[in-house]
Amino acid sequence: MTLGLIAGGGALPQAVAESARAEGRGVFVVALKGMCGDWVADFPHVVVGLGEPGHALKALKKAGATDVLLAGRVERPKFSELKLDAKGVMVLPRVIAAARQGDDALLRVMTGLFEAEGFRAVGVGEAAPGLVAQEGPLGKILPNDDHKADIVRAFAIVRALGALDVGQAAAVCEGLALAVEAAEGTDAMIARITQLRDNLRGTSARKRGVLVKALKPTQDAKTDMPVIGVETVRRAADAGLAGIALEAGKSLIVDKRAVAAEADRLGLFVVGALP
Amino acid sequence: MTLGLIAGGGALPQAVAESARAEGRGVFVVALKGMCGDWVADFPHVVVGLGEPGHALKALKKAGATDVLLAGRVERPKFSELKLDAKGVMVLPRVIAAARQGDDALLRVMTGLFEAEGFRAVGVGEAAPGLVAQEGPLGKILPNDDHKADIVRAFAIVRALGALDVGQAAAVCEGLALAVEAAEGTDAMIARITQLRDNLRGTSARKRGVLVKALKPTQDAKTDMPVIGVETVRRAADAGLAGIALEAGKSLIVDKRAVAAEADRLGLFVVGALP
Repeated sequence: MTLGLIAGGGALPQAVAESARAEGRGVFVVALKGMCGDWVADFPHVVVGLGEPGHALKALKKAGATDVLLAGRVERPKFSELKLDAKGVMVLPRVIAAARQGDDALLRVMTGLFEAEGFRAVGVGEAAPGLVAQEGPLGKILPNDDHKADIVRAFAIVRALGALDVGQAAAVCEGLALAVEAAEGTDAMIARITQLRDNLRGTSARKRGVLVKALKPTQDAKTDMPVIGVETVRRAADAGLAGIALEAGKSLIVDKRAVAAEADRLGLFVVGALP
Repeated sequence: MTLGLIAGGGALPQAVAESARAEGRGVFVVALKGMCGDWVADFPHVVVGLGEPGHALKALKKAGATDVLLAGRVERPKFSELKLDAKGVMVLPRVIAAARQGDDALLRVMTGLFEAEGFRAVGVGEAAPGLVAQEGPLGKILPNDDHKADIVRAFAIVRALGALDVGQAAAVCEGLALAVEAAEGTDAMIARITQLRDNLRGTSARKRGVLVKALKPTQDAKTDMPVIGVETVRRAADAGLAGIALEAGKSLIVDKRAVAAEADRLGLFVVGALP
């Protein structure tokens, strides 16, 4: 039952690998070149480019991996500049066609590649259940009624956007949609809130508004669950937001203890909610 | 049949005033303090703050205005810092409650204030029909099939967002949602496309992707039709976009001749489309 972890960028793949190992599973990492961090040195692994699925499949089989999991940020390559192995040449047309339909379609095709070779695609929820957001507050601070109304509205926005495969996050302050995520990603989305006029938003002294992240309805929770970590809490605080709400059961928190401590220190709430 | 024009910021109010005057209508402008431009000196007018609806109503009646039209950008004030006249004191609670529900609710309440005093609320389409986008291309350049597919997807995104009163604009490039408008406005949304990785988007040398603006389904075309002008075309070109699509019959173009000329010069299409 070795887990084959296809690891992109960011802190999530490491958290998954460590969590799975802590539960006694064998972990073999396929580190995506230029994206996966140095932490991979702690695990049996192979480094492959995005155009080398044949290389990745061979290494996973040799390592005895039965389950595969894609985790972490994957940057869309310039397809014309990819170094391709034989398998890559075969699947590239399908991958390009999927990429035109959006990130989810792309992920579904990638997952399908591994399933067609006999691997079982698993989600983070199964491989590393300790990372999944639970319902209720994570730290000591709770949302007030204004925040709760903003959370409801932001979930509605994220759901509508997610159904169209646009993004996973939105920020709302007293009814006003401050920012909505598309290709720029959540970090850039949060950062630009500070550029709005200061009567529309909060400040670190007087926090207002909420960040919501939720699974796109088009996603199947195996491939691209929304993630936050300590850095997300810091960015939300810098943007003057009062807190963060995540879809309980369908979002991930990297290092819950550290996130709760940082949220308490900075005066933000972090809650899991059922939208 | 004097038109009472409540004028906020941007180029639209001036275009409306000049277009209505060119058609032989009397025009009286209520210039919102700190927002309306200097052009108002060419018209009979009064300058009022956002907290002074009583002042505005009195001036409109004295000028013999029968119809009123709100046009231009209105920045949300800090309600606590508003200078209020007697009427302002009376309506402020309703305005604040509406503001919490979003821009459209706010505009509906503002329009309702004037209707309750016996004015007829008219849209730009009636007061200045020459500004309304028609179906079909404005300049010489036409969208190709890729662009048309992106236009369809961007309209779907704007419609979903608009139904939730989030924004009026989105940019899509080969299926990927590059950016979606919320409180930052269309100009800032276009500008941030240049910060995306260059394999996701076009460049001024090789243009890719489209900007779409459309009326929110929650809006009634009287208060807040989407607007573009020459500056929008320049910003879209700077962001590497291939063109702009507007909802025909429900969007406005300030100075169509100049927009067509600039689009041709920069190599962009501008089309009116029925989504």
